[in-house]
Amino acid sequence: MNLEGLRALIRDIPDFPKKGIVFKDITPMLKEGPALRFACDQLAENFKGMKVEQVIGIESRGFIFSPVLAYQLGAGFVPVRKKGKLPGAKEVVSYSLEYGEDSLEVHLDAIKKGTRVIIVDDLLATGGTAEAVVRLVEKLGGTVLGLAFLVELAFLKGRQRLQNYPVHSLIQF
Amino acid sequence: MNLEGLRALIRDIPDFPKKGIVFKDITPMLKEGPALRFACDQLAENFKGMKVEQVIGIESRGFIFSPVLAYQLGAGFVPVRKKGKLPGAKEVVSYSLEYGEDSLEVHLDAIKKGTRVIIVDDLLATGGTAEAVVRLVEKLGGTVLGLAFLVELAFLKGRQRLQNYPVHSLIQF
Repeated sequence: MNLEGLRALIRDIPDFPKKGIVFKDITPMLKEGPALRFACDQLAENFKGMKVEQVIGIESRGFIFSPVLAYQLGAGFVPVRKKGKLPGAKEVVSYSLEYGEDSLEVHLDAIKKGTRVIIVDDLLATGGTAEAVVRLVEKLGGTVLGLAFLVELAFLKGRQRLQNYPVHSLIQF
Repeated sequence: MNLEGLRALIRDIPDFPKKGIVFKDITPMLKEGPALRFACDQLAENFKGMKVEQVIGIESRGFIFSPVLAYQLGAGFVPVRKKGKLPGAKEVVSYSLEYGEDSLEVHLDAIKKGTRVIIVDDLLATGGTAEAVVRLVEKLGGTVLGLAFLVELAFLKGRQRLQNYPVHSLIQF
């Protein structure tokens, strides 16, 4: 397996979730053992030796790669979830969508002050969600060492919103 | 780390998601690197040498352990998602809830006939969801080698609905 092989396993689904959008579907890649392993190893490689203490994952698809990276790096996993899903005392962050806004939550006691964390998601698009999660982590006092994404939609320039942090992606469109 | 240590990191949240229910919150365990690694290693241990080809995970919390087990076992990962989330051609299964019913979906091309799969989730409660996912996998022709859960609420007897399959859980309440 290599990066070209990985890229070939991502398929375009036109008009999903709505007309005019071409959805990058990673499920054909996830279902192949060697491809999944290669992708996780490549993503984790960026953070070896950096003493990552926690990996932050964003519901739902962001839960796929982040716990694997936590496992590989010997770190813990912290879920950032949609409104109303976490049962304990929470910190909340709001962010803008194309129309309206949305919010994400994390447990108040999930990240201690000074904890070294990374943020991992499947897709970097406009960067709005990732930027909101950075703010959420920093509200709790965590130190964001970097962010990693399987796929980056480079034409949406999400990286510009995260320019104070190292941003890694395996496959760019 | 050991099983007693793991159990001590699961906390009770009373009246969540609604009054009278005591929610078992695994996030204090997930956030600790050694606990997460121990839990994943113990879960994967049940399937070593069984030639697992794919690990099936159920949205959203079920996405946490299942990709890690896929990584450990060298298998692929197949997400079973809530209605409308998967972009490709799908197979659907409905199942009963306390009031009404719900459905889950998987991509039609996700599991080939005869593929050796396991189903992994964080929690076994009544077993209704797990049983639905077994049916979904078998509709596509997959062979269910077994199921694994971090936590089993044994008093809800979910295991009885899965009695034709090996069922593993790390922690029982």
